[in-house]
Amino acid sequence: MGIAIGAGIAVLTGLGAGVGIGLATAKSSEAIARQPEAAGQISKNLILGCALAEATAIYGFLIAILLIFMS
Amino acid sequence: MGIAIGAGIAVLTGLGAGVGIGLATAKSSEAIARQPEAAGQISKNLILGCALAEATAIYGFLIAILLIFMS
Amino acid sequence: MGIAIGAGIAVLTGLGAGVGIGLATAKSSEAIARQPEAAGQISKNLILGCALAEATAIYGFLIAILLIFMS
Repeated sequence: MGIAIGAGIAVLTGLGAGVGIGLATAKSSEAIARQPEAAGQISKNLILGCALAEATAIYGFLIAILLIFMS
Repeated sequence: MGIAIGAGIAVLTGLGAGVGIGLATAKSSEAIARQPEAAGQISKNLILGCALAEATAIYGFLIAILLIFMS
Repeated sequence: MGIAIGAGIAVLTGLGAGVGIGLATAKSSEAIARQPEAAGQISKNLILGCALAEATAIYGFLIAILLIFMS
């Protein structure tokens, strides 16, 4: 029982990354609209930020997987 | 039972980093649009901030891993 | 049982640092775009602020480590 609750709480970590990546994408789109010739640099920036934010969601996912399969 | 819940709560720390990295990326994209010639300095700034924010997520991940494997 | 939950709650402190460092980085990028020639000073400022915010996450991490290894 506790394992299921723990795994549920663990994967909830993705909530922050979901909001963060959304915000980053939103502002990047706005930025490309403002300076279309800087689109390459802005995309590179977005990929860097999103990869790091995504990693936080993957930590929660990994812990949930570990909790389920280690018990 | 308590260990699974504890590990879940621990890894939840990544939530803050997910939102924080997203915010940092959002404003950095906006900044590159404003001053494309400062893109290098802005990227350096973003990498520094994101590495420190990511570290807070890694602390939670480490504690979750310790809780799972130390018991 | 209580130790694992306590350690999880302790390391959750990093949540604030994750958001805070993200906000600091966001506004620093904006500031560099506004005054690219002040980038060195802005970076120095960011490093100082982030180090102090990071310390709050380390407090939570240390308490979690102590809880796990002292029991």
